[in-house]
Amino acid sequence: MNESKLPIIFISNDDGINAPGIHRLIDYVAGRGRIIAVAPEGPRSGQSSALTVNSPLRITRYPDYCGAEMYGVNGTPVDCVKLGVHAILKDKCPDILLAGINHGSNSAINTLYSGTMGAVFEGCLLGANAVGFSYHSHDENASLAACAPVVDDIVTRVIAKGLPAGVCLNVNIPKCERVAGIKVARAANGYWTEEFAEYTDPHGRPYFWLTGHFHNLEPDSADTDLYWTERGYASVVPCRPDQTAIDDLANIKSLLD
Amino acid sequence: MNESKLPIIFISNDDGINAPGIHRLIDYVAGRGRIIAVAPEGPRSGQSSALTVNSPLRITRYPDYCGAEMYGVNGTPVDCVKLGVHAILKDKCPDILLAGINHGSNSAINTLYSGTMGAVFEGCLLGANAVGFSYHSHDENASLAACAPVVDDIVTRVIAKGLPAGVCLNVNIPKCERVAGIKVARAANGYWTEEFAEYTDPHGRPYFWLTGHFHNLEPDSADTDLYWTERGYASVVPCRPDQTAIDDLANIKSLLD
Repeated sequence: MNESKLPIIFISNDDGINAPGIHRLIDYVAGRGRIIAVAPEGPRSGQSSALTVNSPLRITRYPDYCGAEMYGVNGTPVDCVKLGVHAILKDKCPDILLAGINHGSNSAINTLYSGTMGAVFEGCLLGANAVGFSYHSHDENASLAACAPVVDDIVTRVIAKGLPAGVCLNVNIPKCERVAGIKVARAANGYWTEEFAEYTDPHGRPYFWLTGHFHNLEPDSADTDLYWTERGYASVVPCRPDQTAIDDLANIKSLLD
Repeated sequence: MNESKLPIIFISNDDGINAPGIHRLIDYVAGRGRIIAVAPEGPRSGQSSALTVNSPLRITRYPDYCGAEMYGVNGTPVDCVKLGVHAILKDKCPDILLAGINHGSNSAINTLYSGTMGAVFEGCLLGANAVGFSYHSHDENASLAACAPVVDDIVTRVIAKGLPAGVCLNVNIPKCERVAGIKVARAANGYWTEEFAEYTDPHGRPYFWLTGHFHNLEPDSADTDLYWTERGYASVVPCRPDQTAIDDLANIKSLLD
């Protein structure tokens, strides 16, 4: 295949350009296209779709990795996608945007806070086929080998068939040696109970660190992402950047009449 | 009414605790309940649902305003909701969460990037009746008087009837002296064309500032928020924090079969 006909695969993450997860993702898709990785210079977890409007952004070339061009940006995952597509691709939309492999879960409502999914939503809005991958271990030294066949299978199908317009995928892979299979699901309903660790500084002023526990409100619902990841399957949740509650338009019209 | 029976109204924003918009919002709901305002100490526009996980948070009491308790947090809008509810309300869910009045539009896909709507989604997840208000002028000195009857009407109805579970409201008010009415709508489809202003620093290194223009892909669709705000009406878009594309589950199942 002529190199110019190869798909452009744009890769980002929220753990930073030096995180093992982005290197493994590149390993797993190497040879499938021209790979351009643009990621934050350091960890930017929990950045959602935040973007940087009040300070300047820089893009820095890093050494190539496994045939991929590598760039760091002093911003959020969304900044990486916006600036990377502008400065490197000269505003040409990539064919595929992949994010991850995130070190930690982006199941259920974590989608909302996830910088990984922020990059994916941004790719989807640009018109790319966009997929985020997350592995359920925060240990950056954990093997990600269980992700390899999942990434391979999903990327193959997405390249072959494409995704519906306006839809992107959130893939979660449980901590395991080998997944039992892949299941399409919706995000489980649940919530975080925040727990703030409270400290006192040397001047007597309190400060807080955010922590918390997630409570799954429907652990027995077999159509949810957490149901399947807890049973050893990778979950695939189709997502939309548009947050309109279409099914509630009539309800809200009657509220305001 | 016994003071303890008054609803708890939690107010936040992304323009900061000193922005005119949060003061006007307090003016417009004063007397309806116990008002607690917790907002970033400075502007945090474009923060989406970002949260601060890698640095400590502080909460600082400011002078009361118009009967409202005022607090600043060195974090994002979501941090303000999480920490405010924990540290001030001792984890009791507020009855109502209002965010704004934002200085600038949060119509269409701007919902995704909006820190104002980040606070609203967080309130919705906590179980509060949550509404964000945005005024279509970035001029912080602009009069927000056109917002007063819209805030009054919507807050009255929301207190009286409540919102459906899992649904919050995104209210946009056009720049005008008096709105023509209130219309329930979906977010218009559109996209940003990014334009990065490029500069060179004294050391010869380039840097970029994000800017851009929004393109409305369906300017004639009468069921969209932008259609109505462009015609002088306030738009109300019901939104959900859960980003699952429920209608696409079958499509994606067939893709992966």
